[in-house]
Amino acid sequence: MNGLLDWWERRCSRTSAVRFGDVNLRAIGQVMFQDHPLSGMLFFIAIGWDAYAAAAPAVAIGGVVALVVATSTAHWLQADDAHIRAGLLGFNGYLVGLALATFMQPSATMWVCVALGGAMSTIALLAIANVRKTWSVPALTAPFVLVAWLLLLATNAFGGLDSVLPPGAHIVPSRCVGGPSASCGRVRRGDASQHLPGLPQGQRHRRRPARGGTRRQLARRCGVGHGGAVVAVATAHSLGAESELVSGGLMGFSPVLTAVALGAMFHAPGLRGAVYAVLGTIFTVFVQGALNAVVTPFAIPTLTAPFVLATWLFRLARPKLD
Amino acid sequence: MNGLLDWWERRCSRTSAVRFGDVNLRAIGQVMFQDHPLSGMLFFIAIGWDAYAAAAPAVAIGGVVALVVATSTAHWLQADDAHIRAGLLGFNGYLVGLALATFMQPSATMWVCVALGGAMSTIALLAIANVRKTWSVPALTAPFVLVAWLLLLATNAFGGLDSVLPPGAHIVPSRCVGGPSASCGRVRRGDASQHLPGLPQGQRHRRRPARGGTRRQLARRCGVGHGGAVVAVATAHSLGAESELVSGGLMGFSPVLTAVALGAMFHAPGLRGAVYAVLGTIFTVFVQGALNAVVTPFAIPTLTAPFVLATWLFRLARPKLD
Amino acid sequence: MNGLLDWWERRCSRTSAVRFGDVNLRAIGQVMFQDHPLSGMLFFIAIGWDAYAAAAPAVAIGGVVALVVATSTAHWLQADDAHIRAGLLGFNGYLVGLALATFMQPSATMWVCVALGGAMSTIALLAIANVRKTWSVPALTAPFVLVAWLLLLATNAFGGLDSVLPPGAHIVPSRCVGGPSASCGRVRRGDASQHLPGLPQGQRHRRRPARGGTRRQLARRCGVGHGGAVVAVATAHSLGAESELVSGGLMGFSPVLTAVALGAMFHAPGLRGAVYAVLGTIFTVFVQGALNAVVTPFAIPTLTAPFVLATWLFRLARPKLD
Repeated sequence: MNGLLDWWERRCSRTSAVRFGDVNLRAIGQVMFQDHPLSGMLFFIAIGWDAYAAAAPAVAIGGVVALVVATSTAHWLQADDAHIRAGLLGFNGYLVGLALATFMQPSATMWVCVALGGAMSTIALLAIANVRKTWSVPALTAPFVLVAWLLLLATNAFGGLDSVLPPGAHIVPSRCVGGPSASCGRVRRGDASQHLPGLPQGQRHRRRPARGGTRRQLARRCGVGHGGAVVAVATAHSLGAESELVSGGLMGFSPVLTAVALGAMFHAPGLRGAVYAVLGTIFTVFVQGALNAVVTPFAIPTLTAPFVLATWLFRLARPKLD
Repeated sequence: MNGLLDWWERRCSRTSAVRFGDVNLRAIGQVMFQDHPLSGMLFFIAIGWDAYAAAAPAVAIGGVVALVVATSTAHWLQADDAHIRAGLLGFNGYLVGLALATFMQPSATMWVCVALGGAMSTIALLAIANVRKTWSVPALTAPFVLVAWLLLLATNAFGGLDSVLPPGAHIVPSRCVGGPSASCGRVRRGDASQHLPGLPQGQRHRRRPARGGTRRQLARRCGVGHGGAVVAVATAHSLGAESELVSGGLMGFSPVLTAVALGAMFHAPGLRGAVYAVLGTIFTVFVQGALNAVVTPFAIPTLTAPFVLATWLFRLARPKLD
Repeated sequence: MNGLLDWWERRCSRTSAVRFGDVNLRAIGQVMFQDHPLSGMLFFIAIGWDAYAAAAPAVAIGGVVALVVATSTAHWLQADDAHIRAGLLGFNGYLVGLALATFMQPSATMWVCVALGGAMSTIALLAIANVRKTWSVPALTAPFVLVAWLLLLATNAFGGLDSVLPPGAHIVPSRCVGGPSASCGRVRRGDASQHLPGLPQGQRHRRRPARGGTRRQLARRCGVGHGGAVVAVATAHSLGAESELVSGGLMGFSPVLTAVALGAMFHAPGLRGAVYAVLGTIFTVFVQGALNAVVTPFAIPTLTAPFVLATWLFRLARPKLD
């Protein structure tokens, strides 16, 4: 495997087109925490298959178009090269493309929006990263949420941009921002892995940070994700959320992302860290319900906003639990 | 009196349960600016009596439950010990408990929300305190507003959380967040006294800050509160606000808090400082009207948000008026 | 011309009333980037003529009243003297006055709101300037948007404040915040010229900064404004925005401000800088549509909020394009 990687790395450094493909595959991998071109390829195939099965190939293509534009924009704006190479400036764009292609009617205008959304995801990430530095909190998927919200809201204003959502509708289809249905896979989608504090700082500025970490870290995240899904579904059920929402995965989406982000927050998480992550997961279910009520009149989905809001609060509090 | 306090302090240092009771009583006192267990006890009795008279004992109990959870959470997260002992990490939780028990139907789920709200008030306070440090502005009651809003909004999303408010209703009952009806008493309720700049900095980091200050400071605040209430009611009346709202205290709630917070802002307030505080009080009446219009479609009360927004603006402007 | 200016400056330093008039004329000039009393006088006459022709003299008078109050408030709060003299603490107030007099029914209460809005524009500017310093982004017209929104929202809450807008209406009349109809003139209206980064830093703290810059800079801005208007209108049309909105100038208002602000962002703008500014202009059209959808239910206009939001994002991203 290492021999294969070395061979691939030599190809990348020789041909810039190969490097460009490598970076974009890593960005898809980053959506699920993996800084590896092969992981990205596998996820890409999985999402493509999902879109094909749902007779919505535009979703998979939209993701790729926005991703390529996002990465190109990052190059053009001369963003940090190590971050670009690790795919960290692409995955918000990939999510924007998936979301716009999911929620808008296919048309020439939709493709313009997808491309614009890809470029804007990079600009928004750089802007939010400048702001968040003040408090050392991660940008998470805030760029994706901000850009996708603005472009979807604009569909309500312009006749040429037809939204799939009727005004007042707000149910996020479970295939939303496309992806596999297993909770462990879905968990990582949409998370800004680069900012997860569980990863040693030193790794972040290496030429090619080993984003995915060791197998042990991966297994831990997978376990945290499964645990988070259980807590989230149990919370939503006991609060009386309609069971189709729960079983469709809507109520477990953001809470599980929070579980992974908070579970990875402590270097040596003990019982206290676990309780803190569970509290964050439960709270995210409430924030999901609250934001549903807020965005419903505007006919947009909450996307991963509950995850971003709850995780920011729990990270900013800087509890001493290690 | 001092002899009694010394005896009490010795009891506190000997028995941790007594200390825990002392801290929670001080937190109730802090709601009205007083860092004193006896003040807290008197306020607790007054609020309890009010709740009993309104046949809503759950309000008084909800406050205490959230308060105890908030203080325990602060201990668990190892927050600053001097702040905990002065009750400063409890009063936002107390307000959250009072508000949730006022606006939600009593049920098992409501009690879960009250407990969660208490814990979240501490986490939100620590998070907001981290952010506000950048600009040296007080957190005020922002943690209370944020957490109570999110949990009340969630009631609109989950079938199991029944809100007392019908969708579209937004009138805050005058017994809201329970308390005495005299304006001087109501004024201090809900204010983050620890951040009032009128208090010398040095006091803030003593083991047990003499929060309430001297009798003279107390009298001054009481006078400012009364003056603020007069300005607020006159402003609301002249703008044509319905007179039940005004006489029910709704329009004077946040403005009077602003009056006290801005009145205490200057070390040696002269005419200029007084005019600045009056301007802030009048502006808060407008912000109250504006936020009423914003939150009405979401069926939540404004709580003390107008006070927080207006006071932040007037404090951030840092006028040279001393 | 220089002789005339010297004579005028001597008059100003001798008589404080003349100085006060000079400062307020410069503030009107600043609305269109010009730190010159004569420019301010010409703009004032143009706006007054426009208001007279529209049979709405209150609009022109409202602007002046709010401006005088804003400048006086800045003096009273001892704001930076060089900034006051350049008119930089007045133009947000002028815009607030124009907007309130445009969107509210003339009445005694309206005039109280205009005066309060003028004072608040200064306080909000000082507050926002303190916050924005952390990230070195300009306050732009954010104080105008915040204060005008709050006061217009309050008209929905108080019976005594009648809004011209019926609830649900959101079309900004093209004479909104009064002004000439030529795009180059309209472009600069509402822009916080003092923060435009294209101007050398050193100029900003001189006793009387030559805000307007050289004729070459002026010509450049005029060209950028025209180009921005073309891009904005083309974008809005291709997205299917109703053509009255486009031809009425609504869709081109904020985008053109963004074009000027981003066009002036680079010291030596080349093709890359131009593309960046065009991207910002196109994005602002989408943000305009998105914010239209957000503010419609609250019966307030978007004012220049799309310009502020988009320009902040594009500035905060700090692209290396020079």
